[in-house]
Amino acid sequence: MVDIATRVYNHTWKLDPIIRSLLDSDYYKFSMQQLIRRFYPDVTATFALNNRTKSVRLADDIDERELREQLDHARNLKFTQRELIWLAGNTFYGRERIFGPDYLAYLKDFRLPDYELTKRDGQYELRFAGNWAATTMWEVQSLAIVNELRARAIMRTLSKLELDILYANAKAKAWDKIKRLRVLKDEVGSLKISDFGTRRRHGYLWQQWMMEALADALGPEVFTGTSNMKLAMDLGLEAIGTNAHELPMVYAALAQTDAELLAAPYRVLEDWARIYDQNMRIILPDCFGTEHFLVHAPDWVADWTGARPDSKDPTEGTEELIRWWSSKGRDPTKKLVILSDGMDIDSIEQTARHFKGRVRIGYGWGTNLTNDFKGCMPNGDADALAPISVVCKVVEANGRPAVKLSDNPLKATGPKDEIERYRRIFGIAGMKAQPVVV
Amino acid sequence: MVDIATRVYNHTWKLDPIIRSLLDSDYYKFSMQQLIRRFYPDVTATFALNNRTKSVRLADDIDERELREQLDHARNLKFTQRELIWLAGNTFYGRERIFGPDYLAYLKDFRLPDYELTKRDGQYELRFAGNWAATTMWEVQSLAIVNELRARAIMRTLSKLELDILYANAKAKAWDKIKRLRVLKDEVGSLKISDFGTRRRHGYLWQQWMMEALADALGPEVFTGTSNMKLAMDLGLEAIGTNAHELPMVYAALAQTDAELLAAPYRVLEDWARIYDQNMRIILPDCFGTEHFLVHAPDWVADWTGARPDSKDPTEGTEELIRWWSSKGRDPTKKLVILSDGMDIDSIEQTARHFKGRVRIGYGWGTNLTNDFKGCMPNGDADALAPISVVCKVVEANGRPAVKLSDNPLKATGPKDEIERYRRIFGIAGMKAQPVVV
Repeated sequence: MVDIATRVYNHTWKLDPIIRSLLDSDYYKFSMQQLIRRFYPDVTATFALNNRTKSVRLADDIDERELREQLDHARNLKFTQRELIWLAGNTFYGRERIFGPDYLAYLKDFRLPDYELTKRDGQYELRFAGNWAATTMWEVQSLAIVNELRARAIMRTLSKLELDILYANAKAKAWDKIKRLRVLKDEVGSLKISDFGTRRRHGYLWQQWMMEALADALGPEVFTGTSNMKLAMDLGLEAIGTNAHELPMVYAALAQTDAELLAAPYRVLEDWARIYDQNMRIILPDCFGTEHFLVHAPDWVADWTGARPDSKDPTEGTEELIRWWSSKGRDPTKKLVILSDGMDIDSIEQTARHFKGRVRIGYGWGTNLTNDFKGCMPNGDADALAPISVVCKVVEANGRPAVKLSDNPLKATGPKDEIERYRRIFGIAGMKAQPVVV
Repeated sequence: MVDIATRVYNHTWKLDPIIRSLLDSDYYKFSMQQLIRRFYPDVTATFALNNRTKSVRLADDIDERELREQLDHARNLKFTQRELIWLAGNTFYGRERIFGPDYLAYLKDFRLPDYELTKRDGQYELRFAGNWAATTMWEVQSLAIVNELRARAIMRTLSKLELDILYANAKAKAWDKIKRLRVLKDEVGSLKISDFGTRRRHGYLWQQWMMEALADALGPEVFTGTSNMKLAMDLGLEAIGTNAHELPMVYAALAQTDAELLAAPYRVLEDWARIYDQNMRIILPDCFGTEHFLVHAPDWVADWTGARPDSKDPTEGTEELIRWWSSKGRDPTKKLVILSDGMDIDSIEQTARHFKGRVRIGYGWGTNLTNDFKGCMPNGDADALAPISVVCKVVEANGRPAVKLSDNPLKATGPKDEIERYRRIFGIAGMKAQPVVV
């Protein structure tokens, strides 16, 4: 029995949307947007997409018209009544009404701002300029659009059977990882995994499949939630998130003096703590070098619940934090380390075993959770769908360049002379070049 | 958009039928049935199901009510007008009108005869007694019912996710085999695979998926067809088949003297050749021992197109045939050997390489094609769905016991004293015990 109405409806689709809802974004974009609205409502900030995998020429792979259609579609979205009610009524990190009435009123009329799209050297130059609180929201969604369009372009040549096998391979691969996580949980006693993979996902439906699979197979004790607000709402999962480099980067860009610049990373935390408490107080220490950040941090920073090392080897980064908490007289076993930088099943196993009993670890599993199609293509290059390292970063605020140093010099962003200036001010202690995989 | 009509209809299903059509059976059952109708229309023959995998207690695993429902459902089936037109109008082995008008008239009113079902020692005793031409048709369908009911019983405990993973694993496994077959084809130049897996299939829908996958991925040059008449019709594939032990077994059972008994296997071929020619003339030499059969065969037997060794190691069995054809002055490279006894991807590779250029080989891939779920169960015993060795064999004809010796004494069937008598008459030259896997 063919449902003719469904069939005809499907054939009249104008496009298969990648972003179906403004909630299809990360929790931390909302918590940061609220902070920006509260403290910096008038700052302008430009975000720019950057494909670090230069060997993949995105402008050749992705049709510009399709890219514009998807970006335009996202720009036409508004929060629905049901979504706003969920934002207002849902509990986040155990707290009610985390999003205040002013902020919710702002979201009621929110739309994604305009974009600028050009091509250069086989890459798209995609920029979002304007009010920081608005442009910040493009980060996750522009990345999700670009990543899914690339996957679609690659899959366009596949037959129905090949697609069937592709997803069979990917599901079999996902299941192998789930089995390893179960064994790991039994071995180390406690294992907390959450999904940070919205921006780099293979596709929305695949992310949804993965969330349902993890929820079903691991349960809430191990699979603690997703950063994706829409999936959290639809599937009844916890929304999870920390905060991003854009906060210290913009605060630093706005600094008028070297002293203000040095103080910027801690001012972020002060502002954050005025809105968020408990498990939302997670330090992101690496923006201008973790070592400098920790050495100069006021004592109260060590009272925060945890930290997210983001550009060092996860074991080294975590050991450094444990040493720091200990040196500050805090008990590391009470602290939470969020590992979210290119984690895969191997590094999850390795770190979970290594730190068993020494510190609490929460894994924010991103690219290798929601876009792990390496080896899955049935014919030709089995790795054709391997993910690329594409980011969307703030590049300027109020007309002043935004800089990130990170612990890995290869991940530094900003104009060369500004990077040099920041390096002079913050130093380069503890920085070490490491290949950027995802 | 939920199609409410479909949903409500689905919920009113009385049963999910395993046999959907009387055509859902093997081609050779039809070619044999036509022969039986022509030469032995009044012979009675009893078929009996036998599960050789005693460790699997089918009567514990399969609900008797469900088994009866499926058997009764099959008994209610009649050939549809469309099916009869296909049988009359389709070309089989390149020949038109292979099924004569008398036989088609017989099929018009054909129904599967009654069955007897009891339990003993944790196994079902399932017997079909009556007119040979009618009872013969139960072989494939009773096996398909029992195998699929067992699979369903095992899968009943699986969650939706586990089922999803189960089939993902099975598809990934199937694809690995397809890739190996492509490589093998490139290596050996010619590779002919057909499906003989109806009786032992995991399920009808899975067999259908596999046929579509093989047709799509290998094309008609490598995937030459299926024994399943319904799938051949529905998917536009060639229907493929040889002939079975029941012919020499019944002919032998009816023999009145030792001389008639010794002549029985060759009388089968004489009758067969009165109806079928060319590629349908495939010897099945092992019923009472291949060596005896070949040594005593009249010279014209060596003119037949090929042979199907069925109970020796495939390499040994094929070498023996090549030697025999050579000794008879026939060119083995013009002959066709059908390998169909428990073949898997390893033995296909091994034999295709071994016999490259020495003889034509056609693979009749059965159990390990349509029921290869070893290692696929997502949780618990990964091999829980590994196939069992269940057969449905003729046990008596006109009240006289039917016997098969085969080249493997472990596969001999019949009453002990009758087996002994047959062994005295045919000898045991060349027989060797080998484990029966499927």
